[in-house]
Amino acid sequence: MYLKNAWYVAGWERDLDDGLLARTICEEPIVLFRCENGKVGALEDRCCHRSAPLSFGRLKNNEVECGYHGLRFDKTGQCTAIPTQNLVPPGARVRSYPALIKNRWIWVWMGDVNKADKEQIPNYFFLDSPEWATIEDYFYIECNYQAYIDIQLDQSHSPFVHPDTLGNPAKLKVKPKVTREERALRCERLFPDDIPPPLWAEAAKIEGKGDSWNRWIYNPPATIMFDVGAAQSGTGAFEGNFDHSIRIHNAHAITPETATTTHHFWSSARDFGIGDPQTEKEVSIIRKVFREDVAICEAQQRTINKFPGAPQIDVAMDHPTIQARNLLEKLIKEETQNL
Amino acid sequence: MYLKNAWYVAGWERDLDDGLLARTICEEPIVLFRCENGKVGALEDRCCHRSAPLSFGRLKNNEVECGYHGLRFDKTGQCTAIPTQNLVPPGARVRSYPALIKNRWIWVWMGDVNKADKEQIPNYFFLDSPEWATIEDYFYIECNYQAYIDIQLDQSHSPFVHPDTLGNPAKLKVKPKVTREERALRCERLFPDDIPPPLWAEAAKIEGKGDSWNRWIYNPPATIMFDVGAAQSGTGAFEGNFDHSIRIHNAHAITPETATTTHHFWSSARDFGIGDPQTEKEVSIIRKVFREDVAICEAQQRTINKFPGAPQIDVAMDHPTIQARNLLEKLIKEETQNL
Amino acid sequence: MYLKNAWYVAGWERDLDDGLLARTICEEPIVLFRCENGKVGALEDRCCHRSAPLSFGRLKNNEVECGYHGLRFDKTGQCTAIPTQNLVPPGARVRSYPALIKNRWIWVWMGDVNKADKEQIPNYFFLDSPEWATIEDYFYIECNYQAYIDIQLDQSHSPFVHPDTLGNPAKLKVKPKVTREERALRCERLFPDDIPPPLWAEAAKIEGKGDSWNRWIYNPPATIMFDVGAAQSGTGAFEGNFDHSIRIHNAHAITPETATTTHHFWSSARDFGIGDPQTEKEVSIIRKVFREDVAICEAQQRTINKFPGAPQIDVAMDHPTIQARNLLEKLIKEETQNL
Repeated sequence: MYLKNAWYVAGWERDLDDGLLARTICEEPIVLFRCENGKVGALEDRCCHRSAPLSFGRLKNNEVECGYHGLRFDKTGQCTAIPTQNLVPPGARVRSYPALIKNRWIWVWMGDVNKADKEQIPNYFFLDSPEWATIEDYFYIECNYQAYIDIQLDQSHSPFVHPDTLGNPAKLKVKPKVTREERALRCERLFPDDIPPPLWAEAAKIEGKGDSWNRWIYNPPATIMFDVGAAQSGTGAFEGNFDHSIRIHNAHAITPETATTTHHFWSSARDFGIGDPQTEKEVSIIRKVFREDVAICEAQQRTINKFPGAPQIDVAMDHPTIQARNLLEKLIKEETQNL
Repeated sequence: MYLKNAWYVAGWERDLDDGLLARTICEEPIVLFRCENGKVGALEDRCCHRSAPLSFGRLKNNEVECGYHGLRFDKTGQCTAIPTQNLVPPGARVRSYPALIKNRWIWVWMGDVNKADKEQIPNYFFLDSPEWATIEDYFYIECNYQAYIDIQLDQSHSPFVHPDTLGNPAKLKVKPKVTREERALRCERLFPDDIPPPLWAEAAKIEGKGDSWNRWIYNPPATIMFDVGAAQSGTGAFEGNFDHSIRIHNAHAITPETATTTHHFWSSARDFGIGDPQTEKEVSIIRKVFREDVAICEAQQRTINKFPGAPQIDVAMDHPTIQARNLLEKLIKEETQNL
Repeated sequence: MYLKNAWYVAGWERDLDDGLLARTICEEPIVLFRCENGKVGALEDRCCHRSAPLSFGRLKNNEVECGYHGLRFDKTGQCTAIPTQNLVPPGARVRSYPALIKNRWIWVWMGDVNKADKEQIPNYFFLDSPEWATIEDYFYIECNYQAYIDIQLDQSHSPFVHPDTLGNPAKLKVKPKVTREERALRCERLFPDDIPPPLWAEAAKIEGKGDSWNRWIYNPPATIMFDVGAAQSGTGAFEGNFDHSIRIHNAHAITPETATTTHHFWSSARDFGIGDPQTEKEVSIIRKVFREDVAICEAQQRTINKFPGAPQIDVAMDHPTIQARNLLEKLIKEETQNL
């Protein structure tokens, strides 16, 4: 069960550089391409004639030519040409999906075309801002997307999944403050008068103690902005003055492929040490951290497969992830009832 | 659903040189072997005792000895010996299939033994004639056999699947003429006063224009003879005078292994340039052409798997393949009703 | 369907040297570990919180710490700690299995804890006796465990599966004598005044003819002791005087993983040529013999998968394996009726 009236990230803009891109989202195979005017086409990846995948064909004049018998389809899914005959029968068309590029990500709307609302796309400005430097990648993950969202929203796993990288049991004593909005969940943990890590202290020129924080915003179904940073104590960073701070904004697009496979497009952006190889090297440990998330979530999925229907108990530290799942469940329920 | 009262090609004769050959046809595992008198044995590939595959055993004195407990079976499937006991119980036997060699192919009859009719085997004389030189191979293909028969009977895919090898959109303007017989479908396209390819013109000593053609005969369920050629214009090749012509006869045995896997035994025979390395090199492009067929059909199968039950629309150029499928469907229906 | 109130071998004791051992038995994933007092813990390999496999975690102070959120479980399966909260809810526990080490094998009881009876574990003393030298290994086998037990209890396959190693058709003429006990099956074949193999004759200092034997004891569900040996003729070896004999005791633990996969822990122990490299080399042919068993049983399983429900005929030499299957079936039936 997926939320259909929603935007999902289908890839990085650059994934369209080579022509046709095949990607399955919410169990629906899609072929994506970029037209000369910069607009993005997204069609059902199956020719309506003999079921060849359109992604096996060619991009020609902003249309997709099937690689089997040469039928052509425009960006709306309409068949525009059939070789060896002049007439195109009226039923010759494939489904098209609203799609666009924003902040260097390809976004696809999986539901009712008439409800596609660009305003629902989160603003991940730091993905394509010259004031932010990014480390970024794509992981293909063999687990359910909600389980993988869980781990991004849950800090309590850190000492156990990341003992040699992030692990910091002390910080877990600060309880997360969770706020629910109509289509978002926010979480905040503030650490005033904290001793920041040396890298951060140096980058932010913090002398002595600092104010540090981590916050996230989850936009259901499947994107997260994770914000961590530190500032000289008492310079107002908690209230929005970032003049004496350094910040890292992580963007996660966690797009379901199937019930047990997931696309993870991620970027870790920073507003300090831009162009500095030493900083780049130090922050790139995030890649190892994310790989540790992948390992435990894939192991968890394999175990769930072996114990179908086994119950799970909840503990106190689960409340942010439970709230996130509840919010998504509510949206899916509303969508299903409105059908 | 397969046509059972029919001959299927199980392999090249030479596949029997090393003893026992295991091959699954119409989802039935079979072990094949050659007796000293040249006759071919074909047995169910499962010992009736403890279900070991007989193909794991040994060929001994024209019988198959099971590799587990040494039970022996003759060409009729009768168990002839059980070690450590003298009596062979009456039920100790495995199914046998009529089988024979013709034109260097092993043919197996999958249905009612009493209906096995050797006259139904097509005459592919050019597979073992000294007047014809062949290029030949075996492909294992991950798609349904009917979809793979389709591509052999359909020329309209050529400009899109073979753009760098065969692709010739101009010839598609000549409509195929299809003739249906009781157990065959014929198709013909004639191109009088055509400019032949340089290789053909030279081989057939054509000066100026030529008469060229392509024809196929489909013998359901699963073999095709494809005939292409060219002759000096007006020398009567269309009427059967091949004195001033060159010809290529392709034989395709497209044997179903399972619903989504297929054996393709093929030969491309020519009556010109026999023993000439340059001609051999030029005609061997056919291997690349067939590999292109395989790639699109396997991609098509994967997409069909992802969209179970999705409808397909037909277009005008499909009529030869639709007629072929209709003929096979009719034969299967008749066979089922007669049970 | 498995016998649950029974001990199964889960591994070699040394498999616990590196911490947590994951092993699936009777389709139940289990994590095994050794406590400082030498006792063995065996827990359901799934955290009751978020279903991460406990085997992905760490062994800490005789407890298992989950590798996801750090929940701890003691040897009884009770959750003893949850990070970031003080209270452990009463339902926070996982299933535990009785487990112990005996004769260097880890034994696990898969059924009702109250019925676990250590007396049921066979005494394979030769696995850890200084008077016996062993060759031993672990095979992971892709077939049903009962089919693999069959081949160990059946000597009639020898000339066909082991033609170049053991194969000795002559000995098959001596019929096996089978004796059934409440929870064991015994089989014996005696060969008085036999010519022993040269290796044995030399090791046992047999001059001329010897008395030799093979015997096995099957303890259902899944362990076998196989005893072969030879002695100077007439020195009373058949009656238990082994002063003039050499003996080989093979122990087989054939533990079902799933319906079509099996763990095989085995040891071949001898009471002669201990520490002698030449003897070690000659007896190590047993590894090749066992590999031949694996090959035929895996081929058999693949064929059974292809012919679901196909009947099998029995022959006279099957009676030991049929009796073994009947005994296990009876025990399973009794267990099921007592539920």
